[in-house]
Amino acid sequence: MTQATTRLNDVDLDAVTGLVDAINDDPGKAQTTWAAHVRWDSAFASSARIRNFDPIRSDEPAALGGGDTGPNPVEQLLGALGNCLTVGYIANASVAGIAIDDLRIDLKGDLDLRVFLGLAEGHAGFESITATVHLTSSAAPEQIDELHTKVLASSPVGHTLSHAVPVNIELAAPPRG
Amino acid sequence: MTQATTRLNDVDLDAVTGLVDAINDDPGKAQTTWAAHVRWDSAFASSARIRNFDPIRSDEPAALGGGDTGPNPVEQLLGALGNCLTVGYIANASVAGIAIDDLRIDLKGDLDLRVFLGLAEGHAGFESITATVHLTSSAAPEQIDELHTKVLASSPVGHTLSHAVPVNIELAAPPRG
Repeated sequence: MTQATTRLNDVDLDAVTGLVDAINDDPGKAQTTWAAHVRWDSAFASSARIRNFDPIRSDEPAALGGGDTGPNPVEQLLGALGNCLTVGYIANASVAGIAIDDLRIDLKGDLDLRVFLGLAEGHAGFESITATVHLTSSAAPEQIDELHTKVLASSPVGHTLSHAVPVNIELAAPPRG
Repeated sequence: MTQATTRLNDVDLDAVTGLVDAINDDPGKAQTTWAAHVRWDSAFASSARIRNFDPIRSDEPAALGGGDTGPNPVEQLLGALGNCLTVGYIANASVAGIAIDDLRIDLKGDLDLRVFLGLAEGHAGFESITATVHLTSSAAPEQIDELHTKVLASSPVGHTLSHAVPVNIELAAPPRG
């Protein structure tokens, strides 16, 4: 016996539906923990290790005293937001029966370096972030608007940035000599 | 004439001091804008392009219906935080004359998938994020504590996550047919 899988936008809808059903049966399955492990390489360069994937290299541009060997952390943050929004549009479109032809998202964020450099106190992070979504689809404009509303209401990275999330940064006990 | 550069933790301190002096002379130079450009590849896979660096591949694990070809966006967010904190410790240590022997940061975050999956309303993002910092240095514990305090007060990614930042997500006008 073979079973046809249902695909739209190349998404395996059966897998998505199966996850939703599993969580409806056991809401505890919705509680997930995610992890990353960062190692300092040299100067301002470091690498983030996530599961078994190749490390993501990070550095600062020369204008900030870095070696410019990779995107810097605030750029990576913008990339993570764009990648998350992409999943949001594609997942919600697929469930709603909307075929997406093309999707590109341009992200930018403004940041005052003075707090980072110790020249001022206050908010060191992005003052604001803008994502401009270029979505090509033959769906009706009302369907695209509804899709957009759903994505705004459900983006894990988007909500992490737009809400104040408790961030606990602790020094581990130093290794014993 | 040659000029010796001052280096600690392989950081070019003259470059960092030069940036601080330049911003003190012209605070407008502290106003920076950062960018990333994301393209949908297929299903839940996409790539973030940042300046001329290799694209950062993103995907979802199979349990979430993805192809598992890269770290997912919330994992990338944790990696960006760890990379940012690393720059913070190394930069502040270097300016304070503290030599760092080794630095690793383990990050984790808890997330309830129900809002992302449309099974509940509310906060779709991380409920909390924890970074555990493994820092090896022969500096006095009080110096390390002071360093830690400075990093907490000045981390761009850390503050972006722990503060509510305006995130504006807009649909660009569709291309004309």
